[in-house]
Amino acid sequence: MALKTKMALLAAGEHIFLAKGYHHTGIQEILESAGVPKGSFYHYFASKEDFGLQVIASFAKTQHLKLKHGLGNQTLSPLTRLRSYFEVNCQALEASEFRYGCLIGNLSQELADQSEAFRTQLDQIWATWQAQLAACLQQAQDQGEIPVTQNPLTLAAFCLSSWQGAVLQAKVTKNSVPLQAFMQILFGQLLY
Amino acid sequence: MALKTKMALLAAGEHIFLAKGYHHTGIQEILESAGVPKGSFYHYFASKEDFGLQVIASFAKTQHLKLKHGLGNQTLSPLTRLRSYFEVNCQALEASEFRYGCLIGNLSQELADQSEAFRTQLDQIWATWQAQLAACLQQAQDQGEIPVTQNPLTLAAFCLSSWQGAVLQAKVTKNSVPLQAFMQILFGQLLY
Repeated sequence: MALKTKMALLAAGEHIFLAKGYHHTGIQEILESAGVPKGSFYHYFASKEDFGLQVIASFAKTQHLKLKHGLGNQTLSPLTRLRSYFEVNCQALEASEFRYGCLIGNLSQELADQSEAFRTQLDQIWATWQAQLAACLQQAQDQGEIPVTQNPLTLAAFCLSSWQGAVLQAKVTKNSVPLQAFMQILFGQLLY
Repeated sequence: MALKTKMALLAAGEHIFLAKGYHHTGIQEILESAGVPKGSFYHYFASKEDFGLQVIASFAKTQHLKLKHGLGNQTLSPLTRLRSYFEVNCQALEASEFRYGCLIGNLSQELADQSEAFRTQLDQIWATWQAQLAACLQQAQDQGEIPVTQNPLTLAAFCLSSWQGAVLQAKVTKNSVPLQAFMQILFGQLLY
């Protein structure tokens, strides 16, 4: 029961932080959204920051598995896996009418200069995603799908930050144009 | 004197919004930073939102002129202008130890889903910057500096969102690695 309550609070936090950001969200709002009685919060979390760090860790764990699953499917070529991974994310953003963006991108923007604890955690998550993309790009190079002109880690850093930028721009335009530009240039010109 | 006070409030707003975001900044803090007496705020601005919109408009006007100046220097080739523009911005980010990021990128992330007035204004600014980059890329194509394989507007959307993503990532890593990856891939592989 305790675990269930904690999970409900983390899920509510993920949803509301994604929609409204960290500072703009109150603990009371999270408790109400999770249907958890007032006063329970500090039974599970030492502070709002502790809660925020655990929300991010929980979200990152799920995303890590999605990336591992998506980019590790050895029945598809490395480039096909990569394209498919981004296509799935484009569809998800379209389904949400380009609201919200990415929790890690959003909180990186909001919190990297505000709290060293958040910055360190977010930095590790970017680094993990980057390493996962780099491993797939390395395979694409090994199999001759893309030329060996760039270090896979540099290429992965560029893909990841460009993706985050396209997601950000789509949040503003509220259409798929920035995501289409990302897919078209990345797969039509860069990884080619 | 009234104009001077208003300008001081806008400058303080730009600085504090950049450092802390919109929601996390109080009007009192802006007044104190500008050295303006309490109670004066609503003499100049109808609301915090009105103030925010005017801060953004003021910042965008300056950036528009910088872009116009940087990308319009006809003594340099289009690609040299573009590279130089991004290099100057890389140096500015390095000088600030990769804090703050870009006001337009930051507020796009924070406010696009919160207020249609902010979203519309930010969308117009992205579109203006994109058009300015596209004009320079079009010239690079016309002069044979880059191949005519992509629509300049698509290429400009990609450059702009990739840049915003690299700035965001640098805010988290607190080093120039993401910006170096951006410059290396953009000018070493994509616009080549």
